[in-house]
Amino acid sequence: MFESFQKYLLDKVKISDEDLEKIESVCIHKRLHRRQFLLQEGDVSRHNTFVAKGILRQYRIDEEGEEHIMRFAVEDWWISDRESYTTGLVAKSNIDALEDSEVLQWTKENFEQLVATIPVFDDFIKSLLAKSLIAYQNRVYSAISSSAEERYKEFLRSFPDLSNRIPLHMIASYLGISRKTLNRIRQV
Amino acid sequence: MFESFQKYLLDKVKISDEDLEKIESVCIHKRLHRRQFLLQEGDVSRHNTFVAKGILRQYRIDEEGEEHIMRFAVEDWWISDRESYTTGLVAKSNIDALEDSEVLQWTKENFEQLVATIPVFDDFIKSLLAKSLIAYQNRVYSAISSSAEERYKEFLRSFPDLSNRIPLHMIASYLGISRKTLNRIRQV
Repeated sequence: MFESFQKYLLDKVKISDEDLEKIESVCIHKRLHRRQFLLQEGDVSRHNTFVAKGILRQYRIDEEGEEHIMRFAVEDWWISDRESYTTGLVAKSNIDALEDSEVLQWTKENFEQLVATIPVFDDFIKSLLAKSLIAYQNRVYSAISSSAEERYKEFLRSFPDLSNRIPLHMIASYLGISRKTLNRIRQV
Repeated sequence: MFESFQKYLLDKVKISDEDLEKIESVCIHKRLHRRQFLLQEGDVSRHNTFVAKGILRQYRIDEEGEEHIMRFAVEDWWISDRESYTTGLVAKSNIDALEDSEVLQWTKENFEQLVATIPVFDDFIKSLLAKSLIAYQNRVYSAISSSAEERYKEFLRSFPDLSNRIPLHMIASYLGISRKTLNRIRQV
């Protein structure tokens, strides 16, 4: 399973075999069944997680018990509760698998050690966080400026492969619109 | 003007006088009049900007010519168009001053040099980006899960000092709601 990560990384950075071995040596492999949790609200997020296969989603449950999907992650994406991971406080979000999935994980301690000792990996992770910040900024812009219809179209444009793998009510949740509104938009 | 930055930094990290001098030596001071632009759509964002005094806002203009405020930054906050800064592509957003303001800036080249040579500063900037990511995640959650009223209350809770310094129509824009809706909420 490490091969998918190796391929992903070699596509993006020049990294020595020795450093790759270092990264692999502290990597945890995990298989998740559909609906299995990787993280539950109230636990502390202690890992960086790379999706090798499948789909995961991160969501929060509001006071009325309604789910709100913060993000999806498919092959070659990363997912974690950044707030809990960064602060060490309990997570407000849940992460579970929408399909049978395979992930690679590194504990925070090991990950920080890798970043501290492999400069190209440090640069790569920095650029990843920078991109993640940009993606969130764009999502905020989209949320405050666009209609439900525009947001749905943008979702289809940005993630053309995702929409067939995710049930409609989850796309509605991700977009912050009701299922009814999404149905109406799709019928136009 | 560097004193406000020095105070801000010393409050958060242990840093030597020598390193502080390094940071100061490549720091650009800038005064902005109310309504003056720090960045305009179509330019490239080449600086990290720290607000020493005043208020700045970052906003995008949509195809209908409407302004959407992505964020505000007051004293001790940072502001830049992260996408343009990271990618080197032209900015989609504008940054201007809402009051007469004073900022400190570092060019990307100088900033990267500082981060590469001062480990505590590197750690500090990393933690700043991590916090920024968390703040955006929370804003996304708020946007997809909360009513206009809840979002306004959260804004008042999160930024108690901001609401008196910013005109109402700009708060409405930041929250992604109409001025009319905001007026109705405030009358309840």
